[in-house]
Amino acid sequence: MKSIKSLFSIGFFLTLVAQASAQTPVDLIIKNALILTMDGQKTILENGMVVVSEDVIVSVSNGSDFEAYDAKEIIDAKGDIVMPGLINTHTHVSMSVFRSLADDVPDRLHRYIFPLESKLVSRDMVRIGANLGNIEMLKGGVTTYADMYYFEDEVAKTVDKIGMRAVLGETIIKFPVADAQNAQEGIDYALKFIEEYKNHPRITPAFAPHAPYTNTTLVLQQISKLSQELDVPVLIHLAESQRENEIIAERSNGLSPISYMNDIGALNRHLVAAHVIHADAADIALLKANDVGIAHNMSANIKSAKGVSPALEMFDKGLRIGLGTDGPMSGNTLSTIDEFNQVAKVHKLANNDRAAMPPIKVIEMATIGAARALHMEDKIGSLEAGKQADIIIIDTKAPNMVPIYNPYSALVYSANASNVRTSIVAGKILMRDRKILTVDEAKIVQEAQDYAKIVRKTVEESGEKLQ
Amino acid sequence: MKSIKSLFSIGFFLTLVAQASAQTPVDLIIKNALILTMDGQKTILENGMVVVSEDVIVSVSNGSDFEAYDAKEIIDAKGDIVMPGLINTHTHVSMSVFRSLADDVPDRLHRYIFPLESKLVSRDMVRIGANLGNIEMLKGGVTTYADMYYFEDEVAKTVDKIGMRAVLGETIIKFPVADAQNAQEGIDYALKFIEEYKNHPRITPAFAPHAPYTNTTLVLQQISKLSQELDVPVLIHLAESQRENEIIAERSNGLSPISYMNDIGALNRHLVAAHVIHADAADIALLKANDVGIAHNMSANIKSAKGVSPALEMFDKGLRIGLGTDGPMSGNTLSTIDEFNQVAKVHKLANNDRAAMPPIKVIEMATIGAARALHMEDKIGSLEAGKQADIIIIDTKAPNMVPIYNPYSALVYSANASNVRTSIVAGKILMRDRKILTVDEAKIVQEAQDYAKIVRKTVEESGEKLQ
Repeated sequence: MKSIKSLFSIGFFLTLVAQASAQTPVDLIIKNALILTMDGQKTILENGMVVVSEDVIVSVSNGSDFEAYDAKEIIDAKGDIVMPGLINTHTHVSMSVFRSLADDVPDRLHRYIFPLESKLVSRDMVRIGANLGNIEMLKGGVTTYADMYYFEDEVAKTVDKIGMRAVLGETIIKFPVADAQNAQEGIDYALKFIEEYKNHPRITPAFAPHAPYTNTTLVLQQISKLSQELDVPVLIHLAESQRENEIIAERSNGLSPISYMNDIGALNRHLVAAHVIHADAADIALLKANDVGIAHNMSANIKSAKGVSPALEMFDKGLRIGLGTDGPMSGNTLSTIDEFNQVAKVHKLANNDRAAMPPIKVIEMATIGAARALHMEDKIGSLEAGKQADIIIIDTKAPNMVPIYNPYSALVYSANASNVRTSIVAGKILMRDRKILTVDEAKIVQEAQDYAKIVRKTVEESGEKLQ
Repeated sequence: MKSIKSLFSIGFFLTLVAQASAQTPVDLIIKNALILTMDGQKTILENGMVVVSEDVIVSVSNGSDFEAYDAKEIIDAKGDIVMPGLINTHTHVSMSVFRSLADDVPDRLHRYIFPLESKLVSRDMVRIGANLGNIEMLKGGVTTYADMYYFEDEVAKTVDKIGMRAVLGETIIKFPVADAQNAQEGIDYALKFIEEYKNHPRITPAFAPHAPYTNTTLVLQQISKLSQELDVPVLIHLAESQRENEIIAERSNGLSPISYMNDIGALNRHLVAAHVIHADAADIALLKANDVGIAHNMSANIKSAKGVSPALEMFDKGLRIGLGTDGPMSGNTLSTIDEFNQVAKVHKLANNDRAAMPPIKVIEMATIGAARALHMEDKIGSLEAGKQADIIIIDTKAPNMVPIYNPYSALVYSANASNVRTSIVAGKILMRDRKILTVDEAKIVQEAQDYAKIVRKTVEESGEKLQ
């Protein structure tokens, strides 16, 4: 008997060992989720499971392979929506410290913002504003954003610390600004910044010529050439306003801003163009032929009464287009969730068709479309094995989200930024159940409130209006 | 020495008694608040104080009289915004159980919603949907709403229980519905409901003829007459669609819906007209001359591509106009905070003017304007001594709300419904720090999720699409 018992015990032990060794060790499993994968087939999984190892998604499934993994951490989503982290394709995050200032002033950029910035932009201001904007975005489910501003190396430090992902463009503009006396100094600043961050796993440094009309042809051409040599993005405001149309037409014998950019050799797959409101069929064909990315900022565009971008047409024609919020002085919020219902509804209004711009297109522009706009669709924008683990969980039990017959509709027409429960970037949980884990939210808010006193004093002393 | 000491003690004791008796006993003080009173002068108080006794505001001040009161409860707002509770002038709260169903179906009301309602509207459905919608509204700062639906006595029971304020209109429509076989039965149902609730302190019962084109002239005239005799409101959809224009023009030798209502004697100070999209200058003059209230539902109107109401023109001409969300199948959310930025921005777009519809007008339409639309401005809509204590507190430290140079801008362009911390109706705290105190939120959400399974099954069996 003894030998048989021993044999049984050894066999049982070996079975256990075999089971254990058959389990793949992983870092994180999210289970019981309503998964919107945003993959090529727009696969939706009820009771789905996402498996993450280090910074990468290793499996997205119906959960039947749960036993195949040995996870360090398991999140039970309890039926909540799990989807790719949102990607904000255009902002100026540091301007959060100017939010709600003189919102409806005519000719605001030139008459109010540029003068204000000339007095206040500094490393402190950029850092304080970026910290505030980062937590707002993360709490609203934005895991990646594209930024254009000054002292972009300060923004980079904040992104590195909080753990988000970003494309950060150092501004180049023809007049003196806080970190450069002219465009050439801006280019030098950008080159140094690009060199410093070119190998960062989550930060993509970039050039950010402000706009065609605020830079010379030569500078735009120089940046285009450098971006191709260094293989970095170029972020720019393009086809945004009537004023721009007029200045560029004068410079170029009547060309539209997009044709002009093509004419000077500056339209290419490195370019990410923000706004693109004034674009006719020929312009759109040029953007597509040159594989340009586009940031669609509905909320800011209508707040400034600039018009409705032909974003739906560009989306339907297969252009690389994603949602952006624009800066917090323009939008005024930084989470693209706050854009969703405006994007859906204003395109319906503009097209006189309630079926235009259905929710699934909006969610596509917030995720994989935005990834395509930034030429990052190989890394982010959908939940698929091999991609970076940038994942958000959205509460489906908040009263405004109940019931859910169509998760895309619920997200677009009902959700707000506060419905995001958890945000994960590169496999790391940065916010869990609305608590930011990597930086001190209360301290950041206090710093911004303190800085706002300086802004208030500066505006008041300038004789401008606060409101 | 002894006598002197005693004298001193007695004097000290008497001073205490005198101080105590000089203090007015009150129920609630909210202090350290950024108060938007929405009074006639749009007074804003920093570090302000609101004093409440029973259901009434007894004082709104800068707080210097704090010692004059002995309050049972003191809320330190810590600089948060304190303002009148929001008033949603138009919804169908019970339809929350249908939310996110077939959102973008053409001719949705007639092809999808009416057939769905004929299968599903019941006392259970009305109660479950109203409970869900009530908690969504209260969590979004809505303290009063105007509703049009069936079995409105069921809605009344939910409003009574949660403690909100409402104008509840029993629907009258010419075809058979769940609680009436025809318009006459609808009128009888409404009369019974009005009789039952006419003395409720927070519920105003009303007639709700669905629309001019879904009722006969005789029925509309009968309701108008009854509403004047009983002194109750009449809620109606008016000037909402091209289809309505055509039907009414045919019925009336080419009149617009508003002219037709005037022509038959049904435009008067009891009427609250929802939508009013198709209104020219003559229509607007008629609405003003007859003191009609107007519910402006931007979000629903543009989602259905019906157009932009001339709400700004009506506001500027002094009409009684407030914001509404429309039903949760249309809007799709129920808090008017979710309307704010759309109202501001779409009117700018429609007027091609970034200065059009500034935030203060939006907040006025959400509070005192909405109270005027419901003819309740003597009771609610602003924080003033003598008015009902319907008060909300809005978080100013959430990252999306920082900083605040202009509180109206912050509310309109940055806030979302989840930024509301506390909601008070008639002096009673119904939600504190986002926790609903008077009903069981989790149970209500679960009931709605369970009911959604019945909806899903019914739609699937009908062969219609869920999405």
